[in-house]
Amino acid sequence: MNLLLLTPRDHLHDDQWRIADRRARHMRQILALQPGDWLAAGILNGDMGRAECLHDDGTAITVQFTPEESPPPPLPLTLILGLPRPKMLKRILIDATSLGVKRIVLLNSYKVDKSYWQTPELKNELLLHKLLLGLEQARDTVLPDLILARRFRPFMEDDLPSLCADSHCLIGHPGAPALSIPATLSDPVTLAIGPEGGWTPYESEMFMAAGFTGFSLGRRVLRVETAVPTLISRIVSLP
Amino acid sequence: MNLLLLTPRDHLHDDQWRIADRRARHMRQILALQPGDWLAAGILNGDMGRAECLHDDGTAITVQFTPEESPPPPLPLTLILGLPRPKMLKRILIDATSLGVKRIVLLNSYKVDKSYWQTPELKNELLLHKLLLGLEQARDTVLPDLILARRFRPFMEDDLPSLCADSHCLIGHPGAPALSIPATLSDPVTLAIGPEGGWTPYESEMFMAAGFTGFSLGRRVLRVETAVPTLISRIVSLP
Repeated sequence: MNLLLLTPRDHLHDDQWRIADRRARHMRQILALQPGDWLAAGILNGDMGRAECLHDDGTAITVQFTPEESPPPPLPLTLILGLPRPKMLKRILIDATSLGVKRIVLLNSYKVDKSYWQTPELKNELLLHKLLLGLEQARDTVLPDLILARRFRPFMEDDLPSLCADSHCLIGHPGAPALSIPATLSDPVTLAIGPEGGWTPYESEMFMAAGFTGFSLGRRVLRVETAVPTLISRIVSLP
Repeated sequence: MNLLLLTPRDHLHDDQWRIADRRARHMRQILALQPGDWLAAGILNGDMGRAECLHDDGTAITVQFTPEESPPPPLPLTLILGLPRPKMLKRILIDATSLGVKRIVLLNSYKVDKSYWQTPELKNELLLHKLLLGLEQARDTVLPDLILARRFRPFMEDDLPSLCADSHCLIGHPGAPALSIPATLSDPVTLAIGPEGGWTPYESEMFMAAGFTGFSLGRRVLRVETAVPTLISRIVSLP
């Protein structure tokens, strides 16, 4: 926890906030904070700064927050993913969030096992928790939009055109030709990464028809969870 | 398993190999291969090609291997890592290997928990297994060199100079200034990534004295396992 994220339900009054749950345990047990100590903090979707510990009643810790700066700039990238297997989803959402991605679409695909859509991991509260972990890790406050697109074709026809308007549209796919990737773009990018096994030819063609350019990283086949940071880092300008 | 890796102990005679263990189970249960079917294969540290299934005696599957091409080119990068926590080590070794890194150093650091060096995960056989998984994933045959450096200062003084000779030497560290990273180098690179919490000032200074340039990715703090593919992809020329 590199940042204490303050959410509306924590707000007491004025600049005072009351922190319970795992964050308070972390502040006590890992950081061993005492009254008067401070830690990096930020208001969800708001400013960042520092929180001074005022007192701990054993149930919750009251802190005083002083804003100091804006959150780091977002990454100009929309990430569209074939829904990953549940045990990989956590890692991928934390990674993408910590890298600064602000819009993530989890999309159905022919090669996505139907059971993945039934997993408890897709409950709103658990998804939100993963995004918060990514923000805490990276010291960011701006929650990404997360879109669950359970039907491929309606998403492609009704939602994708506005999502990817005015952006470079790229589809990573081991089956695509090994085009050279436009390195470190600073314009907005929409990046689609298939599920394990890749998009089907039909799915790839739908992306191409929507204006996407296919590429691969050459002969190597990467796991989706490796491909996400590798491709994001390769394509957009990190600071 | 995107590639069947053939090791010396599998060799029967001439172009015939006998596959047991988890690889045979994968060929039976996941790929459902029958006599006459083939799959992508490669000889450990040798050529890649295809293996045709000849027969399955229930214990092992005999295949005939035909070489067709060289393995993909290696990444010109030596990766030096503060020894990661055991549960992250597997992911990091698979990621680095699948990206084509051919030399990985696991280095002690002040912030590496001493217990990490005692973990069963560091047994040779288990480390080898992770590297093999990375090769199978990426369709590569060339095993990385893996160096365990249990003492920081002797490694820095005795081993590092020859390891990093004639390469760009970079040390990623959240505490370092946010220099712009030399994007997509095609010359050899030696990249040092600290443990959770980063290198100590003393350790960073030893790297600097050895010719390393410090950099960070800006304000965001990434988990080590996210930083590895992110930095590798950002620094060296992937195809």
